[in-house]
Amino acid sequence: MRRIQVTETTENKDLVQEEKDVQAENVVEETEVVEEQKTELTIEEQYEAKLAELQAKLDDEESRHLRLRADFDNMRRRNQLDREAAEKFRAQSLLSDLLPVIDNFERALQIEASSEETASIVKGIEMVYRSLIEATEKEGLQVIKAEGEQFDPNIHQAVMQEQDNEKETGVVLRELQKGFMLKDRVLRPTMVSVNE
Amino acid sequence: MRRIQVTETTENKDLVQEEKDVQAENVVEETEVVEEQKTELTIEEQYEAKLAELQAKLDDEESRHLRLRADFDNMRRRNQLDREAAEKFRAQSLLSDLLPVIDNFERALQIEASSEETASIVKGIEMVYRSLIEATEKEGLQVIKAEGEQFDPNIHQAVMQEQDNEKETGVVLRELQKGFMLKDRVLRPTMVSVNE
Repeated sequence: MRRIQVTETTENKDLVQEEKDVQAENVVEETEVVEEQKTELTIEEQYEAKLAELQAKLDDEESRHLRLRADFDNMRRRNQLDREAAEKFRAQSLLSDLLPVIDNFERALQIEASSEETASIVKGIEMVYRSLIEATEKEGLQVIKAEGEQFDPNIHQAVMQEQDNEKETGVVLRELQKGFMLKDRVLRPTMVSVNE
Repeated sequence: MRRIQVTETTENKDLVQEEKDVQAENVVEETEVVEEQKTELTIEEQYEAKLAELQAKLDDEESRHLRLRADFDNMRRRNQLDREAAEKFRAQSLLSDLLPVIDNFERALQIEASSEETASIVKGIEMVYRSLIEATEKEGLQVIKAEGEQFDPNIHQAVMQEQDNEKETGVVLRELQKGFMLKDRVLRPTMVSVNE
């Protein structure tokens, strides 16, 4: 197999040489000339051709290796970045599911306690709520600031407009639903009413 | 650089040949003979040696490439497995932090409501609790069965022994703190009392 390839390439080289020497001959004739000339090659020329062929293969193989090495390094880098991103936002799915839990929790805690018994229960539940918030903060969950801030479409979702002449236009007047960031990613924008 | 290497290897080959022919000669003498004989090599022999040298390099390069390709495939497979494992247990850290929240929640819900107001609050809080449990179950959190089960040191932690003659020995009599699995991993074993 190797031998055959060497011979073919030798022919191709001769062909190029032929074209330079004779120029504009019929292709069939050229090929015949090549056939004849092949036998006229000196042993040195034949060996040099084989050496050149082998050297070309070696060069190919070396550059193929370099390319694979580059791919290898790229994959390693990419994997590292993927791993870091996955690690950074690992809790995103669970945190998203916990947002309505937090919403309901806050709603339940808005009760005005009219008896001592109720006040005591609400106090206990508030402690549970705070431990839940602490656990989510540890994973990078943060409440988005809204009321009194300038409206920012990246983190706020305007669901209504109101008018308060004492405040600047475009300022968030009320927070209708809490918004949350997970690290530098918006998990849920704050629903707000904006000053006209 | 390439030429020099070729020449060296040619010498080595001649050396081996020399050893076969002459055998047991002084090393210094051999080397001299080699020097002389080098000039006597036919052109064919010189070329064949160069070809063999180049072919050996090519073979080396090809096997080096195969090794790198195997490393590449291994890394890809390993990364895939790492990613799957990381994905499977991505919520482990947050879930671990939520276990005391769940404990406190359950403790708060054990209150006997003596007024309608309290009963209504507890009902609301129970709904929040259930939505929290649902969110954790969605990520793969499961309560470990304990009471009435045969004691299993893989998932149960015995903190005391009690005696109940009506039940089998080694059976879990009471659950003192709930235990949890995250998928097939024990997140926290159940604390139990075991029948003597």
